[in-house]
Amino acid sequence: MARPDGRAPDQLRPVTLQRNWTKHPEGSVLVQFGDTWVLCTASVTEGVPRWRKGSGLGWVTAEYAMLPRATTTRSERESVRGKISGRTHEISRLIGRSLRACVDLKALGENSIVLDCDVLQADGGTRTAAITGAYVALHDAVSWMAENGSLKSSVEKVMHRSVSAVSVGILRGEPRLDLCYEEDVVADVDMNVVCTGAGDLVEVQGTGEQDVFNRAELDALIDLGAAGCAELTRIQREALS
Amino acid sequence: MARPDGRAPDQLRPVTLQRNWTKHPEGSVLVQFGDTWVLCTASVTEGVPRWRKGSGLGWVTAEYAMLPRATTTRSERESVRGKISGRTHEISRLIGRSLRACVDLKALGENSIVLDCDVLQADGGTRTAAITGAYVALHDAVSWMAENGSLKSSVEKVMHRSVSAVSVGILRGEPRLDLCYEEDVVADVDMNVVCTGAGDLVEVQGTGEQDVFNRAELDALIDLGAAGCAELTRIQREALS
Amino acid sequence: MARPDGRAPDQLRPVTLQRNWTKHPEGSVLVQFGDTWVLCTASVTEGVPRWRKGSGLGWVTAEYAMLPRATTTRSERESVRGKISGRTHEISRLIGRSLRACVDLKALGENSIVLDCDVLQADGGTRTAAITGAYVALHDAVSWMAENGSLKSSVEKVMHRSVSAVSVGILRGEPRLDLCYEEDVVADVDMNVVCTGAGDLVEVQGTGEQDVFNRAELDALIDLGAAGCAELTRIQREALS
Amino acid sequence: MARPDGRAPDQLRPVTLQRNWTKHPEGSVLVQFGDTWVLCTASVTEGVPRWRKGSGLGWVTAEYAMLPRATTTRSERESVRGKISGRTHEISRLIGRSLRACVDLKALGENSIVLDCDVLQADGGTRTAAITGAYVALHDAVSWMAENGSLKSSVEKVMHRSVSAVSVGILRGEPRLDLCYEEDVVADVDMNVVCTGAGDLVEVQGTGEQDVFNRAELDALIDLGAAGCAELTRIQREALS
Amino acid sequence: MARPDGRAPDQLRPVTLQRNWTKHPEGSVLVQFGDTWVLCTASVTEGVPRWRKGSGLGWVTAEYAMLPRATTTRSERESVRGKISGRTHEISRLIGRSLRACVDLKALGENSIVLDCDVLQADGGTRTAAITGAYVALHDAVSWMAENGSLKSSVEKVMHRSVSAVSVGILRGEPRLDLCYEEDVVADVDMNVVCTGAGDLVEVQGTGEQDVFNRAELDALIDLGAAGCAELTRIQREALS
Amino acid sequence: MARPDGRAPDQLRPVTLQRNWTKHPEGSVLVQFGDTWVLCTASVTEGVPRWRKGSGLGWVTAEYAMLPRATTTRSERESVRGKISGRTHEISRLIGRSLRACVDLKALGENSIVLDCDVLQADGGTRTAAITGAYVALHDAVSWMAENGSLKSSVEKVMHRSVSAVSVGILRGEPRLDLCYEEDVVADVDMNVVCTGAGDLVEVQGTGEQDVFNRAELDALIDLGAAGCAELTRIQREALS
Repeated sequence: MARPDGRAPDQLRPVTLQRNWTKHPEGSVLVQFGDTWVLCTASVTEGVPRWRKGSGLGWVTAEYAMLPRATTTRSERESVRGKISGRTHEISRLIGRSLRACVDLKALGENSIVLDCDVLQADGGTRTAAITGAYVALHDAVSWMAENGSLKSSVEKVMHRSVSAVSVGILRGEPRLDLCYEEDVVADVDMNVVCTGAGDLVEVQGTGEQDVFNRAELDALIDLGAAGCAELTRIQREALS
Repeated sequence: MARPDGRAPDQLRPVTLQRNWTKHPEGSVLVQFGDTWVLCTASVTEGVPRWRKGSGLGWVTAEYAMLPRATTTRSERESVRGKISGRTHEISRLIGRSLRACVDLKALGENSIVLDCDVLQADGGTRTAAITGAYVALHDAVSWMAENGSLKSSVEKVMHRSVSAVSVGILRGEPRLDLCYEEDVVADVDMNVVCTGAGDLVEVQGTGEQDVFNRAELDALIDLGAAGCAELTRIQREALS
Repeated sequence: MARPDGRAPDQLRPVTLQRNWTKHPEGSVLVQFGDTWVLCTASVTEGVPRWRKGSGLGWVTAEYAMLPRATTTRSERESVRGKISGRTHEISRLIGRSLRACVDLKALGENSIVLDCDVLQADGGTRTAAITGAYVALHDAVSWMAENGSLKSSVEKVMHRSVSAVSVGILRGEPRLDLCYEEDVVADVDMNVVCTGAGDLVEVQGTGEQDVFNRAELDALIDLGAAGCAELTRIQREALS
Repeated sequence: MARPDGRAPDQLRPVTLQRNWTKHPEGSVLVQFGDTWVLCTASVTEGVPRWRKGSGLGWVTAEYAMLPRATTTRSERESVRGKISGRTHEISRLIGRSLRACVDLKALGENSIVLDCDVLQADGGTRTAAITGAYVALHDAVSWMAENGSLKSSVEKVMHRSVSAVSVGILRGEPRLDLCYEEDVVADVDMNVVCTGAGDLVEVQGTGEQDVFNRAELDALIDLGAAGCAELTRIQREALS
Repeated sequence: MARPDGRAPDQLRPVTLQRNWTKHPEGSVLVQFGDTWVLCTASVTEGVPRWRKGSGLGWVTAEYAMLPRATTTRSERESVRGKISGRTHEISRLIGRSLRACVDLKALGENSIVLDCDVLQADGGTRTAAITGAYVALHDAVSWMAENGSLKSSVEKVMHRSVSAVSVGILRGEPRLDLCYEEDVVADVDMNVVCTGAGDLVEVQGTGEQDVFNRAELDALIDLGAAGCAELTRIQREALS
Repeated sequence: MARPDGRAPDQLRPVTLQRNWTKHPEGSVLVQFGDTWVLCTASVTEGVPRWRKGSGLGWVTAEYAMLPRATTTRSERESVRGKISGRTHEISRLIGRSLRACVDLKALGENSIVLDCDVLQADGGTRTAAITGAYVALHDAVSWMAENGSLKSSVEKVMHRSVSAVSVGILRGEPRLDLCYEEDVVADVDMNVVCTGAGDLVEVQGTGEQDVFNRAELDALIDLGAAGCAELTRIQREALS
């Protein structure tokens, strides 16, 4: 069974990372995984939330959202509904945890960075594209801090790891990398893999809502995801150089 | 006193209208007035809200929002705050009223079109850029309906007028067209002018929060705004042809 | 075509301003434009909102609301719905901007005044009646401050302008002053004009939802509104003397 | 110890009931207990809430609110806070229960009446004034239904009882009727008594937050409250005749 | 007419008070009135709310809630609906007032105690069971404070009274003590009586939504409730010894 | 390094499952994993949400919450804050997905089952205890449906799998099963494993917020979790027999 866009099962969609896409943020990256486009901005503020004051540690958090018509049919704005959906909450938390794994919060000092990941166009894998793009925006923001003298450590010390993420899944028994929406909705098993540039795991979230999965399938998905993340790490490095 | 970007007092910023910017919506336009970028999408659905059922009339409405870091400093998401600000409400209503002036709601039949105007980057004049871009997205959506056989009338009959909008203001006594943010914050008088392609007025909103204004100043601002709208009408026509 | 209450096209409804209508507020005015009744109260507090502290400037803001059965059919309470409508937001902001135009915020010092405008009975023109009445309540509140020694400047210095407001509109080609509800719903063009006592303009908001309007019509409406405001200024002065 | 306004311990404040105070509602009464002023309106709609459809029974409910500056210091609007306070909820429920005791809901048929009680000026006893005034507004609304042919029964059958209410309390050992605010805040025991015109009890709510109370004190308060309600019943009858 | 569980009209259901039911709170009591089970926990924190700082007085407050399936049919969670119902507000306030009557807030010092009363299973009389159980939890929390040296006074001085509560009602003319749900829904008159251990009254709330009641019935209900509270006081003492 | 309660690294805490703990729900289970206590109730209703009508499929969903003092310090109620936290949303979604994996929604027919998981006492692993207990409550509810003739299929056909869940983690390099709170807060890696009774995987969520983890560690955690789930499956079967 061929993939909708003719890719090999272990092939990523075309990935681009455009830095400085908008002019105001300290980091601003438009990440594209095929037709999935996410604008990732990093906003630096001096100081940390009240519960963290005096700890000497910085804070990194993330907020994810979709434009109402990023998808095939329009969804109501969460601002209009007056509350954030469970899905949005869950993804924002995943992005935040993943990015905190990159950062030495002590070296960051009592500064805060908010990563806003707004999906302009969705075609599957928005959360993993967001993590991959947000890493680059975060790196730019930390570099901006260094240039502006608001960082006591070096950029390398603060950004002690890199992270990237990709979705993998099983369709009719075949493990596939970087699912597009058409594949995502029919996958039996769906997994998001977040890795460091060194190949370690940061998060693994595998779900078998359509079907359960066995240990061999889990292993195949982890392998595929780790290989995808390695390729994304390469693309991130290129973009940052 | 020269303008920050060296423009003549009656000169628009460079304006671009990119149609089909994203792939899902029935109309999708990225409008740029200099560094003000607004993504305007038009979403068509069959049927109308409950209170309008059986009237034979269609419905057109608009929702405006800003990405949190569209601005120089980050603002909290309205979805996170759990409510929409007065400013957002006011602008959404202005855009909705202005676009309804374009449309023969009877010819549209019992169909609804939502115009989502999301500011990706803000540099003054976001609401007027939104109206100008949303008109083109709306036109594309109505054309899409015609092509898909869901329109009983012709596109021309439904879109019986065009609209465009521009901000004008007075700075130290000088009337200026299409204020950028730096000008906007220091203007004594600020006005938004919404015109039809035929040169009639749809909305006029003039505010003298820094200072009051006299009749001669009002006249100068209306003249300047009407001329700006005429130029925007030309750019809209070019984009749609 | 005669007006529902037999007025001349350029005639106001009977206008009354009852000061000290309730006993607790520093300013309390019941304003009546015919059957439109608005209770305008001014509440003084020492200090300003956090974002304004240390600026040396005072703050004036307004909140508008309607009792649920001020209108012909009952509308749900905004407190019960848990949010404020766009219309309420828009009107509150208009009243606040208009009243700030009266006040020298530096002379007011770091004090805050909230103007609450609650519509007890609605028959068109509630927002313009509210502005007209709130001016008198604000004047009384500033006088109260002077009497209580909490004002460093004189009342005249703080209240450096007066404002009044009126609605105007075009019905079947005829410009009319101070529309009642029956006229308001069928008007082709609807405009609110806010003027100072000296005849300058503070706000102009004209909307052609039923129809667009040309420059000559705009001019006629502004003339009519300015004349109406002049008469309202006279009534305000009388009330305050 | 004399009362602040010189009344005898068992004396009501001057009570007035102005019917048809505003023109839109089916019942509209301004009730005044001294300086406590409550606008009580009754709004009739055909049909009942979904959970009551097909029962053959009508529905009567109440909503209580205070204008922000009805009190000596301004309180924030519940619509702005986005939620209703416990106090407002509690009072609305009390008024609703009390008024339902007047009405034969079967005779009312599947119609709904909402009683809005908005406090324009508060000086203690707002909830009991609201019940007393709302009864008259409800009676007017039911009479309106009869005149408009939307009532199958007679007014007398629907309004099978009357209700009135008054607050009583103990100050330094002395039971007092109809406490004003100054008395209310220092009362040891505070009780609201709701009676029918026939002298039966509908609700009794006694609270000893400052101090507890014994059986003899309870008895004295009930006696005082019942006598006050009898006088209020007389005033209601006079107003309705 | 026999009672559903065969009790005498003046007989309580089996009442148990299990202290230290959960391990984290400073006081934790599972109270059971037959099949009505309420978990009452008392949480101590140093300091008082902002509006009370510097007063030298402590603060005691209560929050009541029901698990969604405590009842025969499931009710939606208030957290999911995004707001607290009027009924919940009303009961939380009643519990708070009743418990504050037990406590000498001056002797408590600037400390706060929150009483959480969560209904695990409901069969009528949840609010009165909550008050009865919360008293024991509160006593345990104050004892805990004494043992931890955070109380300047003695436990006896702080807990200067005890409180218990019970529901009473009239069914077909018969006064009954401690109504179960089946009785509660058909009672003509329903009353909650809150008494001190010394037999004084703290709160009396009687409602005749199904029917009104006369003075003799009120007296009978108060007698019955006071006797029930005396028995509950005995059970509380036993549990605490 | 010994575990706080002296367990072997691969040993569960004492686990109990008390069926029919409360009387109203169709399924009601108190699950205890040591000091973690969760009340899991299953509520059956005829019909499905609107978006699912006519599909022939049933619906199973879950809501998770904590009592405010289930934890060592009190947390504010989500009903009082007016919104549900990201953590609550995330856990509710995980429980719902896991339980849907047990059920043949076609065999369930157009019926809905809500699983409410309320944490009465928390000591780590509340979400995995909730899944384990909710499975038993769900089984009881489906059996109840069969007994009441509202199930067209057999219980075995509807409940085509069982699920259980357990947390695992790495502390100072040692993989441990079923972490208590004291272990949870210091774990380098934390993983939740959800398995079927047949040993297949339903969900795997591994997070390395304190540290990243390598492939060998992932493997060890999966092994440990799968073994724990097998033991829990045995306990579930025993409870249901």
